[in-house]
Amino acid sequence: MSNSVLVSLTIASLLAGGLAAASRNAPPDKNQVDRAAITSVLTAQQSAWNRGDVVAFLQGYWRSPELTFSGAGGIARGWDGVLARYKEHYPDRSAMGKLDFSGLEFRFLGPDAALILGHWHLKREKGNVGGVFSLVFERFPEGWRIIHDHTSEVPADHSP
Amino acid sequence: MSNSVLVSLTIASLLAGGLAAASRNAPPDKNQVDRAAITSVLTAQQSAWNRGDVVAFLQGYWRSPELTFSGAGGIARGWDGVLARYKEHYPDRSAMGKLDFSGLEFRFLGPDAALILGHWHLKREKGNVGGVFSLVFERFPEGWRIIHDHTSEVPADHSP
Repeated sequence: MSNSVLVSLTIASLLAGGLAAASRNAPPDKNQVDRAAITSVLTAQQSAWNRGDVVAFLQGYWRSPELTFSGAGGIARGWDGVLARYKEHYPDRSAMGKLDFSGLEFRFLGPDAALILGHWHLKREKGNVGGVFSLVFERFPEGWRIIHDHTSEVPADHSP
Repeated sequence: MSNSVLVSLTIASLLAGGLAAASRNAPPDKNQVDRAAITSVLTAQQSAWNRGDVVAFLQGYWRSPELTFSGAGGIARGWDGVLARYKEHYPDRSAMGKLDFSGLEFRFLGPDAALILGHWHLKREKGNVGGVFSLVFERFPEGWRIIHDHTSEVPADHSP
């Protein structure tokens, strides 16, 4: 995550609501910096996916054999395993399609952990799909990383 | 959760491996008490389900409009809404079947939050189902409660 991205996001969130809140003397959001950092990880993932770079997409995940990924396939383990699975399921940019995250909800679980809920949408030639995810992030020296991902497809939850 | 259940669980876990570990001078598991308390919440849920008591089952969840429940149906919100949904989907004991949790994995995310992964199995007259869950627990004055549940059905993941 580059600092310039972080700064842009911070400025964007200030413009989006922070200035208005400040003018009402609202207390500052103590998690604002972490929220921007996590959003930046997800934005970088989305960009990486949309340029067909699965390895860069996976930089948002904890690079550990203990990384877990739950879903309709059960529980998958390990960064290397997740990479192999993505490469198998998404062999080219056409299969990858265009990824979009929306409706992010942040819940901080302490100073170094957060739960992020959201929706994902994938526009593909062979048909759009979408659904919901639950991501558990932890703070590492190198930044916030996803340590657990539980993703579901929701039949009605896709972009037109 | 009664203290006697907690004590029994603690003794059981000592017998299962704690004594062997102690004899090797392993450091004590600093999360042992919390792990037992969370296990006790899940054990109580399983018992409540298997006697057909949906309201008691839901005592394991945070009683709040902010409780979230993700899955193939999207994101459901609020304790009351989850109760209504359970009552609709599981109108009687035959529909509820026999619930079993297995393969629990604990990851503490700080002093007051934990991520629990596991498998669920439901034996029913109309066919068995099973899958995986990701539960985020938070510590409240009244004990550990689930604040977010992401559950998936896994077609091959059911008891015979």
